[in-house]
Amino acid sequence: MIGHLAIVGATGAVGREMIRVLEERNLKPERLSLFASAQSAGQSIEAFGEPVIVKELTEQSFAGVDIALFSAGGERSRRFAPVALDGGTVVVDNSSAFRMEPVVPLVIPEINIGDLRQHRGLIANPNCSTIILLMVIAPLHRFCRIERAVVSTYQAASGAGAAAMAELASQTRAVLEGKNPRGVVFPHPTAFNLFIHESPIGEDGYNAEERKMIQETRKILAEPDFRLSVTCVRVPVMRAHSESINLTFADHVSVQQVQEILSQSEGVRIVDDAAASHFPMPVEASGVDEVLVGHIREDAGQPERRGIELFVSGDQLRKGAALNAVQIVERLV
Amino acid sequence: MIGHLAIVGATGAVGREMIRVLEERNLKPERLSLFASAQSAGQSIEAFGEPVIVKELTEQSFAGVDIALFSAGGERSRRFAPVALDGGTVVVDNSSAFRMEPVVPLVIPEINIGDLRQHRGLIANPNCSTIILLMVIAPLHRFCRIERAVVSTYQAASGAGAAAMAELASQTRAVLEGKNPRGVVFPHPTAFNLFIHESPIGEDGYNAEERKMIQETRKILAEPDFRLSVTCVRVPVMRAHSESINLTFADHVSVQQVQEILSQSEGVRIVDDAAASHFPMPVEASGVDEVLVGHIREDAGQPERRGIELFVSGDQLRKGAALNAVQIVERLV
Repeated sequence: MIGHLAIVGATGAVGREMIRVLEERNLKPERLSLFASAQSAGQSIEAFGEPVIVKELTEQSFAGVDIALFSAGGERSRRFAPVALDGGTVVVDNSSAFRMEPVVPLVIPEINIGDLRQHRGLIANPNCSTIILLMVIAPLHRFCRIERAVVSTYQAASGAGAAAMAELASQTRAVLEGKNPRGVVFPHPTAFNLFIHESPIGEDGYNAEERKMIQETRKILAEPDFRLSVTCVRVPVMRAHSESINLTFADHVSVQQVQEILSQSEGVRIVDDAAASHFPMPVEASGVDEVLVGHIREDAGQPERRGIELFVSGDQLRKGAALNAVQIVERLV
Repeated sequence: MIGHLAIVGATGAVGREMIRVLEERNLKPERLSLFASAQSAGQSIEAFGEPVIVKELTEQSFAGVDIALFSAGGERSRRFAPVALDGGTVVVDNSSAFRMEPVVPLVIPEINIGDLRQHRGLIANPNCSTIILLMVIAPLHRFCRIERAVVSTYQAASGAGAAAMAELASQTRAVLEGKNPRGVVFPHPTAFNLFIHESPIGEDGYNAEERKMIQETRKILAEPDFRLSVTCVRVPVMRAHSESINLTFADHVSVQQVQEILSQSEGVRIVDDAAASHFPMPVEASGVDEVLVGHIREDAGQPERRGIELFVSGDQLRKGAALNAVQIVERLV
């Protein structure tokens, strides 16, 4: 039973999805508090059939709160999570602020639930693209060591929040009307366009999203040298991320073995109908708990027969964020 | 000087682009004939400032034609190209019908112009995704042997023709109006969605587009065992294809060396401004002759320092099809 649960960033895309996931899973807390910035405070959001007024997040917000789900960006997590922890609140943080701190467990319940036991009040929710990748490759890695993975992402607007989704819709409408709109959320046009992920580029040429995927994967798999090559791309899709994944195993692994392992993996659904050319697609992954995987084939570019290629789509707001965080809460209580 | 030039498939997206490219390059033939199916015949298309009436394609169409540019699908090429060849017309075919025939040169002028010399009247234009890939990796391969390439594509609607582009626009408009439209050109929703390339899946699990890229790359590079792993994906973009490319070289190649080679490669333009997060994008590649390349970085997943990752965008209708075909004509005359 969940006592007093707080959602920080309740008016955002992930915050709203958290409420929906709690409702769907019948996880009604004894008390639910919703927090947001001063700007969004005062809004009313329906939760479990009742309107809840969103309050402004302050340092006093966490009095009596048992568990707080943070999804309001790294800056707010850095400022308010320590306050919550000091008062004895357990924090599940969806931002990247604490993910790489050694004492903070970075948890995907289906993959590394064991790490949760050592928590000291703060648990980090991994990056959405990392979760979607690991849901599929972690079970395969357990079956036969993955020596190398090459991944290209197809990331939805939702990863940048509700305002980004609105910008994709409004820009697209404007382009169809023959206008030449300028965006504010994204640095580049989103309508009928795509671009390398907008997070800052480091000295190594990788952007922050790519670095997160590499570092978080290594932490979750507890393999500091796991070889992962990632290119992160933003595409004009609303809310599910897709990933093209090329794997090199230590030994021969057949397509049938991959299918068997993934068909038994919790939270994964195989969508692989070659005759109908029906594979994972964002529109079918949206609003769905499972990560969809398909187009599984032996890699023609690895004649030593140790390669597998596959394609995944997963709802960025659900398993990529809200669902994973709520699953952590389920395991905590 | 071009004598009598015919365009077969003149009302299609590529056919219309061929006329534009001829005009831009001041390649006015002595006579220009435009052909299409009975359904499209009778339309008037402006070329070099004058209206040209499109005629129905028949077996008599090629009398007196010196060069015919075919872009009307594999079936029409298979039926009419032999007729044209019999009458002495040189055929540049944009379909996949003859690309893999050993006696047919498959030509990207910047890469393997030498192959053109051996032609027997029929020259094949490679697949658009193949051209865009090779414009960037062939010069690098010449500098230092590429041992392996892993590619994921982000392919525009234009690759499936003018009707597909119209479907992307109309479906997107309908979705924005809250409707749930069904397509006819593509088997899956295109609006705010993406899907594995719709070409038929073979027994090896690869679709025809992926197989084309592998086989054509091997033929153009004259390397029957070139190791290429490809995933082809259709994205809601109008007319430029993008590709995420991961390379393993035989030896260490630095980012600076890659930049130097590509900055000297004809038909390639580097767009790689890390500070502004500005890299190749379809909206900027559209209508442009060069293939754009950027996000060039040493692959963090290949610690032996033989890996390079990069991202390209190229106009599928221009360098991917019409421009390359017209460049072949330029070299022929």
